[in-house]
Amino acid sequence: MQILVINGPNLNLLGRREPGVYGSMTLAEIEGEMVKAAQDLQVSLTFFQSNHEGALLDRIHAAAADDTAGIIINPGAFTHTSIALRDAVSGVAIPTVEVHLSNIHAREAFRAHSYLAAVAVGQVCGFGPQGYLMALCGLVSRLRKGLAAP
Amino acid sequence: MQILVINGPNLNLLGRREPGVYGSMTLAEIEGEMVKAAQDLQVSLTFFQSNHEGALLDRIHAAAADDTAGIIINPGAFTHTSIALRDAVSGVAIPTVEVHLSNIHAREAFRAHSYLAAVAVGQVCGFGPQGYLMALCGLVSRLRKGLAAP
Amino acid sequence: MQILVINGPNLNLLGRREPGVYGSMTLAEIEGEMVKAAQDLQVSLTFFQSNHEGALLDRIHAAAADDTAGIIINPGAFTHTSIALRDAVSGVAIPTVEVHLSNIHAREAFRAHSYLAAVAVGQVCGFGPQGYLMALCGLVSRLRKGLAAP
Amino acid sequence: MQILVINGPNLNLLGRREPGVYGSMTLAEIEGEMVKAAQDLQVSLTFFQSNHEGALLDRIHAAAADDTAGIIINPGAFTHTSIALRDAVSGVAIPTVEVHLSNIHAREAFRAHSYLAAVAVGQVCGFGPQGYLMALCGLVSRLRKGLAAP
Amino acid sequence: MQILVINGPNLNLLGRREPGVYGSMTLAEIEGEMVKAAQDLQVSLTFFQSNHEGALLDRIHAAAADDTAGIIINPGAFTHTSIALRDAVSGVAIPTVEVHLSNIHAREAFRAHSYLAAVAVGQVCGFGPQGYLMALCGLVSRLRKGLAAP
Amino acid sequence: MQILVINGPNLNLLGRREPGVYGSMTLAEIEGEMVKAAQDLQVSLTFFQSNHEGALLDRIHAAAADDTAGIIINPGAFTHTSIALRDAVSGVAIPTVEVHLSNIHAREAFRAHSYLAAVAVGQVCGFGPQGYLMALCGLVSRLRKGLAAP
Amino acid sequence: MQILVINGPNLNLLGRREPGVYGSMTLAEIEGEMVKAAQDLQVSLTFFQSNHEGALLDRIHAAAADDTAGIIINPGAFTHTSIALRDAVSGVAIPTVEVHLSNIHAREAFRAHSYLAAVAVGQVCGFGPQGYLMALCGLVSRLRKGLAAP
Amino acid sequence: MQILVINGPNLNLLGRREPGVYGSMTLAEIEGEMVKAAQDLQVSLTFFQSNHEGALLDRIHAAAADDTAGIIINPGAFTHTSIALRDAVSGVAIPTVEVHLSNIHAREAFRAHSYLAAVAVGQVCGFGPQGYLMALCGLVSRLRKGLAAP
Amino acid sequence: MQILVINGPNLNLLGRREPGVYGSMTLAEIEGEMVKAAQDLQVSLTFFQSNHEGALLDRIHAAAADDTAGIIINPGAFTHTSIALRDAVSGVAIPTVEVHLSNIHAREAFRAHSYLAAVAVGQVCGFGPQGYLMALCGLVSRLRKGLAAP
Amino acid sequence: MQILVINGPNLNLLGRREPGVYGSMTLAEIEGEMVKAAQDLQVSLTFFQSNHEGALLDRIHAAAADDTAGIIINPGAFTHTSIALRDAVSGVAIPTVEVHLSNIHAREAFRAHSYLAAVAVGQVCGFGPQGYLMALCGLVSRLRKGLAAP
Amino acid sequence: MQILVINGPNLNLLGRREPGVYGSMTLAEIEGEMVKAAQDLQVSLTFFQSNHEGALLDRIHAAAADDTAGIIINPGAFTHTSIALRDAVSGVAIPTVEVHLSNIHAREAFRAHSYLAAVAVGQVCGFGPQGYLMALCGLVSRLRKGLAAP
Amino acid sequence: MQILVINGPNLNLLGRREPGVYGSMTLAEIEGEMVKAAQDLQVSLTFFQSNHEGALLDRIHAAAADDTAGIIINPGAFTHTSIALRDAVSGVAIPTVEVHLSNIHAREAFRAHSYLAAVAVGQVCGFGPQGYLMALCGLVSRLRKGLAAP
Repeated sequence: MQILVINGPNLNLLGRREPGVYGSMTLAEIEGEMVKAAQDLQVSLTFFQSNHEGALLDRIHAAAADDTAGIIINPGAFTHTSIALRDAVSGVAIPTVEVHLSNIHAREAFRAHSYLAAVAVGQVCGFGPQGYLMALCGLVSRLRKGLAAP
Repeated sequence: MQILVINGPNLNLLGRREPGVYGSMTLAEIEGEMVKAAQDLQVSLTFFQSNHEGALLDRIHAAAADDTAGIIINPGAFTHTSIALRDAVSGVAIPTVEVHLSNIHAREAFRAHSYLAAVAVGQVCGFGPQGYLMALCGLVSRLRKGLAAP
Repeated sequence: MQILVINGPNLNLLGRREPGVYGSMTLAEIEGEMVKAAQDLQVSLTFFQSNHEGALLDRIHAAAADDTAGIIINPGAFTHTSIALRDAVSGVAIPTVEVHLSNIHAREAFRAHSYLAAVAVGQVCGFGPQGYLMALCGLVSRLRKGLAAP
Repeated sequence: MQILVINGPNLNLLGRREPGVYGSMTLAEIEGEMVKAAQDLQVSLTFFQSNHEGALLDRIHAAAADDTAGIIINPGAFTHTSIALRDAVSGVAIPTVEVHLSNIHAREAFRAHSYLAAVAVGQVCGFGPQGYLMALCGLVSRLRKGLAAP
Repeated sequence: MQILVINGPNLNLLGRREPGVYGSMTLAEIEGEMVKAAQDLQVSLTFFQSNHEGALLDRIHAAAADDTAGIIINPGAFTHTSIALRDAVSGVAIPTVEVHLSNIHAREAFRAHSYLAAVAVGQVCGFGPQGYLMALCGLVSRLRKGLAAP
Repeated sequence: MQILVINGPNLNLLGRREPGVYGSMTLAEIEGEMVKAAQDLQVSLTFFQSNHEGALLDRIHAAAADDTAGIIINPGAFTHTSIALRDAVSGVAIPTVEVHLSNIHAREAFRAHSYLAAVAVGQVCGFGPQGYLMALCGLVSRLRKGLAAP
Repeated sequence: MQILVINGPNLNLLGRREPGVYGSMTLAEIEGEMVKAAQDLQVSLTFFQSNHEGALLDRIHAAAADDTAGIIINPGAFTHTSIALRDAVSGVAIPTVEVHLSNIHAREAFRAHSYLAAVAVGQVCGFGPQGYLMALCGLVSRLRKGLAAP
Repeated sequence: MQILVINGPNLNLLGRREPGVYGSMTLAEIEGEMVKAAQDLQVSLTFFQSNHEGALLDRIHAAAADDTAGIIINPGAFTHTSIALRDAVSGVAIPTVEVHLSNIHAREAFRAHSYLAAVAVGQVCGFGPQGYLMALCGLVSRLRKGLAAP
Repeated sequence: MQILVINGPNLNLLGRREPGVYGSMTLAEIEGEMVKAAQDLQVSLTFFQSNHEGALLDRIHAAAADDTAGIIINPGAFTHTSIALRDAVSGVAIPTVEVHLSNIHAREAFRAHSYLAAVAVGQVCGFGPQGYLMALCGLVSRLRKGLAAP
Repeated sequence: MQILVINGPNLNLLGRREPGVYGSMTLAEIEGEMVKAAQDLQVSLTFFQSNHEGALLDRIHAAAADDTAGIIINPGAFTHTSIALRDAVSGVAIPTVEVHLSNIHAREAFRAHSYLAAVAVGQVCGFGPQGYLMALCGLVSRLRKGLAAP
Repeated sequence: MQILVINGPNLNLLGRREPGVYGSMTLAEIEGEMVKAAQDLQVSLTFFQSNHEGALLDRIHAAAADDTAGIIINPGAFTHTSIALRDAVSGVAIPTVEVHLSNIHAREAFRAHSYLAAVAVGQVCGFGPQGYLMALCGLVSRLRKGLAAP
Repeated sequence: MQILVINGPNLNLLGRREPGVYGSMTLAEIEGEMVKAAQDLQVSLTFFQSNHEGALLDRIHAAAADDTAGIIINPGAFTHTSIALRDAVSGVAIPTVEVHLSNIHAREAFRAHSYLAAVAVGQVCGFGPQGYLMALCGLVSRLRKGLAAP
């Protein structure tokens, strides 16, 4: 089972970007943790990060053509501004889980709204890097039960 | 390590309440799954459900006096209307995770806002009963790392 | 045919509470009028009043377990604030009619919105105690025609 | 006692207009049911339907000059857009009841607001054709008790 | 194939009404252009213009009784204020296309919202008289493909 | 110099409609007062009242074809709801003054906004019947100074 | 009969301030026109202009102590921002008419709302200097009929 | 003279709940201070605290049946969400003063609005425990002057 | 200990301004009552009233240079419109209490919001002249406990 | 005459993306239909699709340097979020027509607003692939009449 | 070339007012820095500060009568509340630059909106005292290029 | 000292894009002026322009790795839509100044809000190309004083 893990804008800065908000782990370290968890769950992971909305769309489209069973995505700031991302996820109809490192409900008001969430399976936020692992567990569990995209 | 699991109004109906939205497991079955997961994690769980906001507040207050290390709560409809619940969680200062069975972002607009979320550690929604297990993993992981309430 | 008649917060004050707005009949007197009308309609009534939102939820849940064919409810102030009540009515899937003594559209703006109305069969407001009798007629008529909950 | 029954725009289509929303009875059939109920109540009915807001206003004005004791009105879409209708009802000061076939609270948001409601005796919605009979009962009962317009 | 072309309030003024906004062709000239295009498309057209909302409703209702296959309508100012027009179009269930001479999105904010659009097949705006011809092409093409109303 | 005086919906009720708000003079009496004032000003008046928005539009259009130099209009409730009326006034480009008997700023919030006002010369409100005379003076004075429509 | 004529901020600039909006007459010239009209009406006028809100309040208060029968006020920009001015007019309970040179409904949205209007007798706007004369006529007429402040 | 002092949800936590916001005195200590002040004022106090909205309503209703002359209430979070509490206070028609320990205007926006305030005598906020004593003084003074409820 | 008591616009009218809203005591009488209370509390008072926002700012600034320990202010209408007053209070950093004679929450919606409140110690409203005495007690008590400005 | 046809994000998915909403034709098939229509109209077409907002901007800029006479654009989700696209179209001052396959007024509320529309010639929506052909006709017709960009 | 430098309410407190927000330089020191810069630019400066809105208006009006070529203004809190100031700047038609010491976009939401900005040449904010020097450079540069007011 | 100057979407069009709004200088000419000013200030400049949001983010991230001391950015339309840009600036924690050629407060309402501004040092708008020079002066002055990012 192939899972695609997508990180959006500024997440390449993890570890040096506002550590009080986002923690001190780098994205590579988080991906390393995910690989370990994926081995336990016997699924395989592909990673993708870009600051370009278009590149994220292209990558999601590509997932419809390879064997991607599910997507875990932290859309970063595009969460709140990108309807295109929402349409891409609807368009490929691959079950998708939305993750946020920080608790988006405890920050600026404009961070509480997600365009993506309504077409995702669900959302996990506030748990830092651990949230990616939780999303992975939840997504795999859901896929193994044979549930279609929402 | 003692974790309190609280379910709010109408969650006693699980299994027969709108199964298209909330699934077919009963609350007792979900709690059973949680007990199994808790054994793996070597934590102990206490369960509480009430349709009375006041009873939920009383129970959260009581948690401050026993050895409760963390709270997992699905506030049901009180998510969107109860500032008192938010104040109780702030007041006892016990790390608390918010769970929703359904994807609250894909339903009526009034379900997207949570008064509680801003004082919680984080939020998990859309994964059905699996969301409780994810919340348990996330909360225990956070507590073991020694992080204080937000 | 068993009909449950529920009155929410402050309706126990009827007769002495702001008679200019709510009239001079007590709740017992209104219930008396309803009993007479029910005899004509050959249905039987059960009454319940509480100032506790949780107690109202518990009573609605209980209705799913006895032979309640329909519910008439005046949710009082909970009309405008309780999503839990709405979810309880959706959850038990019993046809429910919403009644208000006063014309809620001719008062403060916040009284015009009902969380419950969207999941009710319909709403009757502004007719004083007579509104309960109208609701009874309408509900029984609908149930006898075999229409399911909305 | 003379009661005027007014139906607004598109209600002449009843029976063939969106039967899933408005039912399969024609307006003539509903009026037939009302006549029967009126005989029981010993009141007499006059019917009027128009798609022209101005014609509805003219008819309401005329009611002030004949012996009309009360008005039952389903203003259709004018409910949400016509302040002139509201002013006509205020202007003639005849007790008026507002009826809607469908549950206006369970449809598009713009159908929940009624300009008329604040100057009506009350509102009945969601009961289909039965709602007109309920309105008739309620209005006659109120008039017999000698209550003035609100 | 019979197409009904309806023009709403003030469109009888075309040619002398604010030519900077609406152009210098009269409505008769536009209808002449449409007749020519209809001949090419081998459909027949009926025209109707009124400043009376009620008359527009009556005419739409009448279309349900003759052989009207589709409607092209420029509702003028009623676009933004008439829910009755929307309900008439829904009620007769005839595929309907909305046309505007001017670009309604480049004018006052209140002109950007159309009550009708959500129940129309589609909308064409900003092309002046040419927009009617475009609407005719689009509607006929759609009807020939056998697509039902939205 | 020919001035057209238009009164909209419900203004035919003047004298018996809510005298506390609108005073005790009938429309005929107000028109009588205006005729006297017009004689002093050496202008001639034409009167028109209708409860039909379409009839008001037709009459305004007709004014563009006769020698009407200016319009005084009390649009009644259409003030707040009719964009068609605004477009008619813009369309004929005849200087138009808006009058209201009552102080629309001291009543319900929805009465404070006028769709017409932005295309009128100006607005007079709150002076009762005297307001029509003030509007007449102001309009004639403006026309005599040769000022075009705004 | 003594009438106080108050002009607020920036109206001392009349004649050189944005003549396209406010015309080319100076305030002194307008006051001269008013004096002539006042002689015809056999009333006497007092004039006051200030750019200081406090000075306007002081002057209105003083009017309660001398024989001022009515006030004509152009509050300029304070129309939209000064609740204190509204309270002063309410406080002295002298009938007050609000005048604006320009058509405030055809300008920026923030100019359409007047805090003062709800406590004034009425409002005249859009007639340029002529509006002051209209206000004078209207106010004197009202005072002679013995109507109290609204 | 009997005064009822009511404290709402989470106020039983005082002394250990967010002392930076609410101070370090317990509720019992505050009540002790009030008793002392009441002795000076020669009134007698009854205390009630509950986290249950329904219990607060029941207690307010009970006050209408004993000799309660006035109520001092800190509704806690129910201030912002409970229309039922407002209706209870209106319903019993006992003069009621609203108290808040913290300055609700310097916190989250949702804390600035009180449903209760409009039916209370007045509101005191921001003075910590001292605010209860101020409320007591103000209420007793008002009652001794014989002023009715607002 | 020196306390400055400031009253804003229109409060010089007290006693003759809308006595139904503001009572029949003059400002001088209220100040007399305050002097008596101040003697009991062994503090000294300075009074200032102005209708000029700028004069109020100047006076607050001056308080930073003399021995003013605290300020009691009724900003009147400036409560709702003056950010400058808020900035002055923040700027001098003297503990300040806001008082209103009337219950601002039971009046027009625009009176419920205070720009000042967020930087004040607290707010007292609805108690009439007694509110000043309550504010004095509360402020002195707070100052004696050595609490800094908020 | 050279026309540029631009398709924005996710439109490369056409044919497999939510066919219930967007139909079963691929983008290549639509472009094929357009080429045929262009031959009839004797114009030549250039096609461009990208999921990258920046690439769309670059392509529009390039059009200002080649012989592009007009642009047909379906901006997809960027319709609702990209002010940059609007500025690009304004910046190159090439007449531009906006097309949408679906009826954007019958979907989520956020799809009804277009940042682009106000600077476009006009908008065509709801006709599926046929809409592109309608836009082509309309644009060519407009260009042949020599009308400049709006 | 004569430049007028105006500072509004509370700016006389600079140096002791909230130094964390506004810095530690006094207004006199800032003016001293400006004089030095003005010498380099060979322009001459006049300074004015007042806490009285009316005095600011008077001073701006006076500038139209002396040789003032441009105005630099920090309106302080009047930025957000004074339409009169905006009208004064429009009225005198002297190029005006708006300066703020703090970054008004990083503070309370109500500080982000400026009534003045739309009629100013431009705005400089967030640079502390340096912002006045930047404004001076920008204004002089603009005036030397002979650009009129916006 | 190294300063990075970033220009966002459509700014490559400068000189030919809407010269009435943006002036006639090209971006290269503006950059030439900046280089001259930088020589006087003894700082060195790097320029970057892109229409791709992702490329802007990448460039800002790169600045954290080279010796960039400060950033001057004109985000063009991304000002109003890009939270990612805001997060990039926060993430790299380099002092950043926002510049706009036009006065964004005198244009469409949606141009008045900047997502970036709250995390920038400050904003300069309305001065055309001169604004970049002002921003350079202000930023260098601030950096030389050793002030950290806000």
